[in-house]
Parts: sequence; C-alpha cells; structure tokens
Amino acid sequence: MRPSREIQLASRPLGMPDPADFALVEVSVPEPTDGEVLIRNAYISVDPYMRGRMNDAKSYVPPFVLGEVMTGGAVGRVVASRNERFEEGAWVVHNLGWRELALSDGMGLPFDATAAPVSTGLGVLGMPGLTAYVGLLDVGRVEAGETLYVSGAAGAVGSAVGQIAKLKGCRVIGSAGSAEKVAWLKEIGFDEAFDYHDLPVREALGEGIDVYFDNVGGPTLEAALAALRLRGRIVACGAISQYNATEPPAAPQNLFLIVTKRLRMEGFIISDHFDRMPAFLAEVAPWVRDGSVRYRETVVDGIENAPDAFIGLLAGENTGKMLVRVGPDDA
Amino acid sequence: MRPSREIQLASRPLGMPDPADFALVEVSVPEPTDGEVLIRNAYISVDPYMRGRMNDAKSYVPPFVLGEVMTGGAVGRVVASRNERFEEGAWVVHNLGWRELALSDGMGLPFDATAAPVSTGLGVLGMPGLTAYVGLLDVGRVEAGETLYVSGAAGAVGSAVGQIAKLKGCRVIGSAGSAEKVAWLKEIGFDEAFDYHDLPVREALGEGIDVYFDNVGGPTLEAALAALRLRGRIVACGAISQYNATEPPAAPQNLFLIVTKRLRMEGFIISDHFDRMPAFLAEVAPWVRDGSVRYRETVVDGIENAPDAFIGLLAGENTGKMLVRVGPDDA
Repeated sequence: MRPSREIQLASRPLGMPDPADFALVEVSVPEPTDGEVLIRNAYISVDPYMRGRMNDAKSYVPPFVLGEVMTGGAVGRVVASRNERFEEGAWVVHNLGWRELALSDGMGLPFDATAAPVSTGLGVLGMPGLTAYVGLLDVGRVEAGETLYVSGAAGAVGSAVGQIAKLKGCRVIGSAGSAEKVAWLKEIGFDEAFDYHDLPVREALGEGIDVYFDNVGGPTLEAALAALRLRGRIVACGAISQYNATEPPAAPQNLFLIVTKRLRMEGFIISDHFDRMPAFLAEVAPWVRDGSVRYRETVVDGIENAPDAFIGLLAGENTGKMLVRVGPDDA
Repeated sequence: MRPSREIQLASRPLGMPDPADFALVEVSVPEPTDGEVLIRNAYISVDPYMRGRMNDAKSYVPPFVLGEVMTGGAVGRVVASRNERFEEGAWVVHNLGWRELALSDGMGLPFDATAAPVSTGLGVLGMPGLTAYVGLLDVGRVEAGETLYVSGAAGAVGSAVGQIAKLKGCRVIGSAGSAEKVAWLKEIGFDEAFDYHDLPVREALGEGIDVYFDNVGGPTLEAALAALRLRGRIVACGAISQYNATEPPAAPQNLFLIVTKRLRMEGFIISDHFDRMPAFLAEVAPWVRDGSVRYRETVVDGIENAPDAFIGLLAGENTGKMLVRVGPDDA
C-alpha cells in the first residue's frame, strides 16, 4: 500500500462550484496485481465539460459520484507494472482523474515524452487538440479561403482551433475575455481577436463568417447566427457561458436563420472520434514541434489546489490549457 | 389588351395579415411579343413562406413590393404564344402569382396534364412535394427502420413527408391541429398522429425519434430536441408558428442537446434544389398515380378570395395543399 491523496466530490453545486463541494482525502493505494499498472501522476486536467458531470443528470458521460474521486484526464509515469503493455518509467495518458497515485487496469494511451512535454498529452496533443481537429475538419469541414470565428479562443481547444484553421488557409477571428488573452491570440497568428466585454460580437464579425466554432453558447451563438453567411456551419462543441446557469439559459431567438441561410449546426463529443487520434497526431504533432502551432498552459501546483483551478477555469482565469501539477514531470 | 384581375400588396401587416392588406385590381394585359407567352391561370398557390415576403426584410427571396402583384406559384394554360418552347394549349407551372392572366417571358416548367391533375403541379408534384423529398432524403438522410416525426403533417409538405418516409421504410409520427386532420393522417398511413392541442409533443414522441422534419418551429422544436435520439437530425424547413409573431419568438432553451446528443440541424431552401426535380418526379409521380402517395387539396374559388385563403392557411384551415381556383382546369 502506498499513501496518496485524491479529490472527491463532496456535494453537488448549484451554479458556480464552491471549494466546499470538493474534499481532499488521504487514501492508501494497493500495489498492482495481474494486468494492473500503478501510475504516479504528473498533471491532472481540469476541463469545462466536467462541470456537467457534477450535476446528477443523465448525459453523454455519467455524473461524478458523491464521495468518489473526480475522474478525468491525467498524465503520469508507471512506477510499478504487472501489465506487459506498460513498462516501468513509461508515460501514460489516462482518465483516472484527480489523484496523485492511480491504480490502472491497463487502459490509457502511451505518451512519447521524448517528442513533447508530457503536459501536452492533456492539451494541444491530447483531447483538447483532437477536439479542435475533428471539429474543424470533420464537423465544420472548413475550406481554405473561408472565414472562421471561434469563441473561447484563448482556451485549450480554441487556441488550437484558430491555429489549425490558419494552417488550413482560413481567415481566423477569435474572441476571449481579457486584453492579455487577446494580445496572445494576435501573437499566435489570429487575423482578428477581440475582448467580448469591449465589442459586441456581431459588430466584431463585420462582413460575416463561414464557420462558427462554438465553445460558449448563449448570446454569442445568437450573434454568430446573425453573422453567418449562406451555407455557413456551426460546430457545436461547448457552452461554457451556460454551465453554471441557475436560470433557463439564453436561447437564440434568430434560430430561423438556419432555414433562410441554409445553415448546418452540428454537435459532437470527442470520445466518439478517438479513431482520428493517429491522423491528428501525424499532422499536428510536427506543427507543435516546429512551432507552427503554439500553446500556453496555466499551471497550478498541488492536488489540494485542483478545486480552485477548476473554479478558475470556469471563470476564465486560464490562458490555454489549465493544468494541476501533482508530481514530477521530468522525463 | 385583355382584361384581367390581380391581387396586389396594399400594406405590410404586423402579425396576422388582414384582408385590407391586399387589393383586388383590374388590369389590362397586353398580347405577347417575341419570346413571350400569355397564360390563363387555373390555380394560384398560397404558401406559408409568402408571409415572410410581406415584411420589408432582406431574406432569401425579395419582399413583395407595395402596389405590385403578389408573386408566387401558379399553374395555367397558354392562350397565346410567341415562344417556341410553349404551344398554345400547353400547361405551365410558373411563378407569376396571384393574377388571372399572366404575361410570361417564357420562364416556367411544362406540366403534363394527361398524367395528373394540373393542381398537383402546385402541390404533391410541385414545390411542396419536392420540398418533402429533398428534405427527407438529401438533408435528413432518413434510413429504413428510423422513426421520423413531422409537424404540420396535414399540410402540403408534411403529408408528402410522412408518406414518402413510410415508403422508404420509416416509422412515421405526425402532428396537426384538428381531429379531422389527425384522422386523415391515419387514413394515409401515418403510424401515429396526434392533435398538438390535446397532447404535449414530448409525450407523444414517447421512446424518441431519429429525424424531426420541422415545419412549425417554436415550442414544438424544443420538444423534438428533447425527444431526439443520439445522432438525430432536424430538417429545418419552416416555422409557421412564428411567421405572424409580433413578440420575439420562442427559442429552444435546450439547444445544448445538439452537443450532448451529437445532433445535426440543417436548413434548406427548395429553390436551391430544383436540379432534383427530375429524380423527384421519376420516383414520386408513379406513387401519386398508383395511390401510394395520396394528397388532399383545400380549394377556394375566385381570385378575389385569395387573401382569405392565405389568411386561412396561416391559421391552419387547410388540409393538404391550399389552392385558389381562378380559371378553368380542364385539360
């Protein structure tokens, strides 16, 4: 048995989560038995979709269980293995969540730490990057010469969306919630970037857009509907503006534009598309290595600070991928 | 010059149109010159989309012009021709609208009156039928074994949608606004039909649907979103519940289901798809002739009654295609 700490769901929040909704618990983790692997996590991931799992509602992923660990993306190193797929010292991206030590049944993807920092396995080269890639290419079907607008553009998904779209020949507009984020978007090549607090979205979109990659929902979606050109597409990825809503959410009153402008709005969940991971890594990993696709991380130290990191993410305090470092990350 | 009568737009309505928004005007129509054709209309069409054209708003078709004729679908017979494409006595479906005599520059589709009554050129074998066909097959991509729900099911489009979907192997549910309409839907083979005044839509859809063919919008769309299964589709065709709205329309507050259920919502305008007319007629005309696809018409006599027919259509007084007979229809 080895001592470890984990974060459990203590209560279900109404609206924005509170630190008291989480509990830091000391546990003992057994040594692996046949087929199992013991992983010491370096980083755990906090992601917007996890807010939905805190509610007791049926959805595409089951809700978190009260008194149990907050599961989700994490990357760590194998410290003991009884599974021939994983050698001691190997790096693994897995879904066992907010804990220092994770006893795995062998699920998880190996991560090549000689090629990129292991933290990218949770960000630009992990689920958020794949979300950007699949959303743009398979759902939005962007084409060179089109204009793309992405909201939540300074987040892990949004910043990858904008840069991949640029590399595919699009004109790219992004919105974010602070001047600092907007400055970074311009630095990494967005053609236009604006702070949605300063400028109405519809106005910022000027002559119109062909594709809207929606991470935020609400009034931003309504403005994008107004700005979409004939045969435009909405890639329905997220709605962070609504995840903490306690009132019925804002709904776009101009939805009939879908008919008159022949629009297509399509949702997707990245776990349906893991078969695209090899193609994604083959195309995007070289771009990350040569600097064509850049990324930022907002790293918080210590598993005890994971709840604050998550709450900060929901409040937009991150630029790029929000991570919590819970162990050594040196390869 | 020949005497004729036509209906002009007299004023733009706010909310439900009023007979005073239209004017019956006596006019003189000149004989055709080179390339022109003079048509004596048998039927003129009143269609829900025409309500949008009464507003002075930019949309996919230009607005009607104050003091000018209400243009739109009509079918009539050539009484004088200076165009070699059309012989005297030929039947033509055209877009010159609410008038007894129409002087055409030669636009229009010939209609074979020996194969089906000429009125069907405005209904089940015309634009409404093509709308059903393209919406189901090209936009909704229904497959055998799927469950389809169509609102406005007793209308010209909806009744064709349900019957074509049945012939394609679907289970079909339809809603309409009266017991008489519901009885007719059952008679023509709908698996389930209900009066939306009597039964909440979500309840009527029970175990769920794969495709929603939306003719009405508003709260019905919200209920259908709730009932759609994973990877369901919404064929966004119309929103008759909203065309006369003077308040901002009801908007679906559960739109985020598009993400969690991986839905696709796609709009279309039938004039983009006239290239599908030959395939549509090849497949559906035989079904109409052998009774596999049935249709009803609600016929009002006399061009002076066209405004009342149109207002009645918007109030749901029609079963099947709403037409105004303005001249002889015998071939």
